[in-house]
Amino acid sequence: MASQTCSADTLAAMLGTNTTNATAAATLICDQFNTISTKFTDTAYAVDSTYLLFSAYLVFSMQLGFAMLCAGSVRAKNTMNIMLTNVLDAAAGGLFYYLFGFAFAFGTPSNGFIGKHNFALKDIPSSVFDYSYFLYQWAFAIAAAGITSGSIAERTQFVAYLIYSAFLTGFVYPVVSHWFWSVDGWASASNLDNLFLGSGVIDFAGSGVVHMVGGVAGLYGALIEGPRIGRFDHTGRSVALRGHSASLVVLGTFLLWFGWYGFNPGSFTKILSPYESGNYYGQWSAVGRTAVTTTLAGCTAALTTLFGKRIISGHWNVTDVCNGLLGGFAAITAGCSVVEPWAAIICGFVAACVLTGCNKLAEKYKYDDPLEAAQLHGGCGAWGIIFTALFAKEKYVNEVYPGKPGRPYGLFMGGGGKLLGAHMVQILVIFGFVSATMGPLFFILHKLKLLRISPEDETAGMDMTRHGGFAYVYHDEDSIPMKKIEPASSG
Amino acid sequence: MASQTCSADTLAAMLGTNTTNATAAATLICDQFNTISTKFTDTAYAVDSTYLLFSAYLVFSMQLGFAMLCAGSVRAKNTMNIMLTNVLDAAAGGLFYYLFGFAFAFGTPSNGFIGKHNFALKDIPSSVFDYSYFLYQWAFAIAAAGITSGSIAERTQFVAYLIYSAFLTGFVYPVVSHWFWSVDGWASASNLDNLFLGSGVIDFAGSGVVHMVGGVAGLYGALIEGPRIGRFDHTGRSVALRGHSASLVVLGTFLLWFGWYGFNPGSFTKILSPYESGNYYGQWSAVGRTAVTTTLAGCTAALTTLFGKRIISGHWNVTDVCNGLLGGFAAITAGCSVVEPWAAIICGFVAACVLTGCNKLAEKYKYDDPLEAAQLHGGCGAWGIIFTALFAKEKYVNEVYPGKPGRPYGLFMGGGGKLLGAHMVQILVIFGFVSATMGPLFFILHKLKLLRISPEDETAGMDMTRHGGFAYVYHDEDSIPMKKIEPASSG
Amino acid sequence: MASQTCSADTLAAMLGTNTTNATAAATLICDQFNTISTKFTDTAYAVDSTYLLFSAYLVFSMQLGFAMLCAGSVRAKNTMNIMLTNVLDAAAGGLFYYLFGFAFAFGTPSNGFIGKHNFALKDIPSSVFDYSYFLYQWAFAIAAAGITSGSIAERTQFVAYLIYSAFLTGFVYPVVSHWFWSVDGWASASNLDNLFLGSGVIDFAGSGVVHMVGGVAGLYGALIEGPRIGRFDHTGRSVALRGHSASLVVLGTFLLWFGWYGFNPGSFTKILSPYESGNYYGQWSAVGRTAVTTTLAGCTAALTTLFGKRIISGHWNVTDVCNGLLGGFAAITAGCSVVEPWAAIICGFVAACVLTGCNKLAEKYKYDDPLEAAQLHGGCGAWGIIFTALFAKEKYVNEVYPGKPGRPYGLFMGGGGKLLGAHMVQILVIFGFVSATMGPLFFILHKLKLLRISPEDETAGMDMTRHGGFAYVYHDEDSIPMKKIEPASSG
Repeated sequence: MASQTCSADTLAAMLGTNTTNATAAATLICDQFNTISTKFTDTAYAVDSTYLLFSAYLVFSMQLGFAMLCAGSVRAKNTMNIMLTNVLDAAAGGLFYYLFGFAFAFGTPSNGFIGKHNFALKDIPSSVFDYSYFLYQWAFAIAAAGITSGSIAERTQFVAYLIYSAFLTGFVYPVVSHWFWSVDGWASASNLDNLFLGSGVIDFAGSGVVHMVGGVAGLYGALIEGPRIGRFDHTGRSVALRGHSASLVVLGTFLLWFGWYGFNPGSFTKILSPYESGNYYGQWSAVGRTAVTTTLAGCTAALTTLFGKRIISGHWNVTDVCNGLLGGFAAITAGCSVVEPWAAIICGFVAACVLTGCNKLAEKYKYDDPLEAAQLHGGCGAWGIIFTALFAKEKYVNEVYPGKPGRPYGLFMGGGGKLLGAHMVQILVIFGFVSATMGPLFFILHKLKLLRISPEDETAGMDMTRHGGFAYVYHDEDSIPMKKIEPASSG
Repeated sequence: MASQTCSADTLAAMLGTNTTNATAAATLICDQFNTISTKFTDTAYAVDSTYLLFSAYLVFSMQLGFAMLCAGSVRAKNTMNIMLTNVLDAAAGGLFYYLFGFAFAFGTPSNGFIGKHNFALKDIPSSVFDYSYFLYQWAFAIAAAGITSGSIAERTQFVAYLIYSAFLTGFVYPVVSHWFWSVDGWASASNLDNLFLGSGVIDFAGSGVVHMVGGVAGLYGALIEGPRIGRFDHTGRSVALRGHSASLVVLGTFLLWFGWYGFNPGSFTKILSPYESGNYYGQWSAVGRTAVTTTLAGCTAALTTLFGKRIISGHWNVTDVCNGLLGGFAAITAGCSVVEPWAAIICGFVAACVLTGCNKLAEKYKYDDPLEAAQLHGGCGAWGIIFTALFAKEKYVNEVYPGKPGRPYGLFMGGGGKLLGAHMVQILVIFGFVSATMGPLFFILHKLKLLRISPEDETAGMDMTRHGGFAYVYHDEDSIPMKKIEPASSG
Repeated sequence: MASQTCSADTLAAMLGTNTTNATAAATLICDQFNTISTKFTDTAYAVDSTYLLFSAYLVFSMQLGFAMLCAGSVRAKNTMNIMLTNVLDAAAGGLFYYLFGFAFAFGTPSNGFIGKHNFALKDIPSSVFDYSYFLYQWAFAIAAAGITSGSIAERTQFVAYLIYSAFLTGFVYPVVSHWFWSVDGWASASNLDNLFLGSGVIDFAGSGVVHMVGGVAGLYGALIEGPRIGRFDHTGRSVALRGHSASLVVLGTFLLWFGWYGFNPGSFTKILSPYESGNYYGQWSAVGRTAVTTTLAGCTAALTTLFGKRIISGHWNVTDVCNGLLGGFAAITAGCSVVEPWAAIICGFVAACVLTGCNKLAEKYKYDDPLEAAQLHGGCGAWGIIFTALFAKEKYVNEVYPGKPGRPYGLFMGGGGKLLGAHMVQILVIFGFVSATMGPLFFILHKLKLLRISPEDETAGMDMTRHGGFAYVYHDEDSIPMKKIEPASSG
């Protein structure tokens, strides 16, 4: 505990010539110190577990955010369908991640490519992992599948959802997270004995591991399915198929914002870690700074989108602002813990531009993604990876990833190009691996006619044809029709 | 603090012959140790209070979840009515639980049947209870009343709500919670000097105390009122009266899921309790495990319901899946802290079957419960009580309920049948006590014509007749009607 | 750390004649104690930061609550407009408060009127402020602007929102919060060397600083704009322009309730502060008590409004109950930490009456405030300031604002009239300062024709004319119209 440990023998020798009594005194004193030391250990476990558990709950609330965002962004006739996929992401994800996802991702000791321990929480809790860590990672895993469901909304068979979601949560996402987040991962910034390119990849909370994975998976799904009926008219002109409820979009966006405070600052997983004991500045400050960079990136991206869209389209659009905001969050997620607040503003500004650019590109190539998920999570996620390699600050990198002084940091901060190199590789391998796994999966589903619903079903809406009826019943035959209601005079 | 306390006299004797100086040294050293000891006490209060308060906030958010779930599950014409009852559960519950509910439940010292101290928070805070404990228990109390309001939705006079809600929150629920949760309760697992059947009842977070109580109360209300008009047609065939918004149902369900992390893991009320000082495994692990068992039970129940309903009804139904999920949560609530994660999967699977079975039974006997509250909270709650008696693990039982080694545990885990016996008694006494209190109350209200609204009001909807108008006004005479809106071309 | 510090020299002298060994022993022992002392410091930083960060997240969730409350309270045709203003309050507020708002409010050392350090988080973290403190205060700042947006809803140009919101969050609110909350503020209760009227103003969580500021700003905006078209008919009779969704109103209200647990108890900013070391009663108890007083005030106000409105208008009105509840919260915010729970019940009862009275007054003078924001936050906020001066308890005042024994407290609690004097001044200066800044701003915007939209736009709805379309699209030409849906027979 202290720099100089309390040895009863040493202390007894110091305390004097009367050996028996001195030994007793020294033993008593040292026992006290040892007890105190274990009590500090206990305290740290309790504080860190509290921090991690409540962060996990916040991340879980993002699933609710996704559900509401998705629901509001699709047409009323497909609301139940998309919400059911969100509930099932969480539920199926819970079982699959428990059974093998967590083991593939974090099971240790393992090779650099896939974990092979801790299936079904075997040998957990241990000195390495507690249940709270599993819960936190489960909440992350279901987020990735949630992203993908947005890309293929309004035209996908329900059975296809079940299959890709299980594969993504149970295998693809865990493998990628192993590479970059497990201490054994080949590209992990914490694999100190074997840092990839001498640097490792700093993807703190997962612009790549979560957002790009979900976004690229969605890209393949949406590409293979093709656009929704009516999304591009006979002349090829883009026709917005507006979501049915802006209120749900805003509700979902704010809930995601709320949950992101678990996603980014929570990724420290511990808060009681001093950088220099007794000083006001410690990991608790880094956690707070991460919350601030996250906030500023999102805010800047929202404002940039607001004014940008006003110039382009002539009106102030709330759903575009919501997407811009989320793009800023997706981008800052990689570097949130290692950049200065002012850099987060740059991150958000560029993220908004990247999203607008990706959307232009999508329209040009007649790519239809009802939630803009591939553009937002894939595009802004990729930008976030690059951003981190440019703006990561030396001091913060060494505090957040300790034990390897002199490691590379952001190019623009004087840290050389190695981190950028590693991060370009990350973008490529994520794109490659997700392409090589989710691409064929969607293609096979397509060939087996399990992917897309029939045009009749699509026109009628999936809620009616597959889910037992519409999500909303505002009119009721035996009630007074709403349109006849007169405004009541107030009391 | 340490196993060997620091006595200045003892230490002085050890430190040597120069008595004066030795005494001074020993006093200084022991004073330091004593100060350290009190600082650990302070730290534990702060950490545990933080944990309990935020858990209480999460449990409170379940009231919002109930409000949205109920609103979405009723017809549009009764939305304001049901939401108002949810707001009032919380508000009236706040006053009644403050004035006497908490005293009946936890006031100590008391007899085994009802508490008799701490009315209006008198003598609180004390070394036994702090304000945070009251707040946490208040959030639980209003949950029980919320459950009941679902059973009698869409046909009950508002004044009846006010009466039963006050009686349930202020008396019935507190008394039951006293029996099983107060250290003085006749069937409490913490009443170590006097364990009922040598075992006591392990209803950790209230499958019985909260869910069965709310569900059985709802059963009597709904039975005495009879089904809603149109719920069963002339031939007696069941006609689903679909809720007006699946979005609100999903929103409410996810909020309840979110809040259940306060309900179940939060029921430890403390997190800084080592089971063996200095070891990574302590109450913080048990808290995390409880969050995991809760998650897995809900997930399994949701998936079971999904596939079960698909086979039975031919479609994928989101609201049924939501109810299945909640049934899994209601069932795991009793045993969440004392079972293994794999057992939670069994718990959830059976809970889904129990719910489906109860719903079949309800239909057969023309029992109409708009929220399936009696089936879900009553039926799955009762299953959860039995489940705990079968699967409670020895090690966990002794950690969570310490101080009585050798106590009974789960039958299937080798712990004998005593716990099962105690738990069967719990089911019977809860059913009996709620029958003997809420049954007559609803019957008297019925006889006094205070229970059910008139058929005209029921057909027109209560919002229009009692609450000043409909909940929704989407059409506005002086605005462009929504149906004429053309999809805008995207920017 | 201890009352008697551990000096190696002193201890060595005590330990004996063999100087060398005694020095070594004393050094070893004292080093251990010093290490322990720094570890306690670390622990306190981690615990307090966890507490403050999660409180900040809760306060942030109030922005979501405001957005939903506002959305539900306006007509469907203006939903996107009002929600966009809420998103932008948060986003623009994030940038402005980062750049200069925080510096004006808390930058220290400074004069009593405005802060002048820490622009763009310069020199933060320091021993005075950490990032988490900034985040917490940002979440407060955006709440004030959110209040004002309610008052001027449904008729205000979007550009006017951007301007007033930036001015309010970046200047007006920070200056007021400096006066009452910065240790340098001229009327701060923590400015111990220079307590205003020997007392300072006890506005713990901001009935004045947040609610009155937001409410009075809204008052000027709404007064200068005038009522919405149709709000008062040809004869001058009041016509309720009902909000389009009671579900959103209830959702928003419950979210605000949830978030208020961050707003009021969170305002302690630290939880690990014993009042007397080793005792169960410490700041953690005061935090819990604050949560309880907040709850009871809101509950009482809700019930009072329920029965009051039933008597006045003849029906049970859920939106009125929601507003009453929020009025109770706004009122208790100033004194929540320094009054007894029973006093909170008085606070809530009177708050409901104040709100009803203000609403009567507003109708009489044809003042139109779609969210009743000026009445609720301004009126009940002012009552809360007076209430605190009447009921603040000596013991609690000295615990929450330590270091100045004998300071004034509540008039009715025997603490004399000085606190009431200071609080009357607070009401006057807040009213005066907001009048002198926001009044002219709204007037200039009005004169420049930047404030109110055209009557045509107002009639058509701003969503259609300014935001690209309606918020809701329930009907879809190529889908089966909802009104034809038959109830499905249940499975």
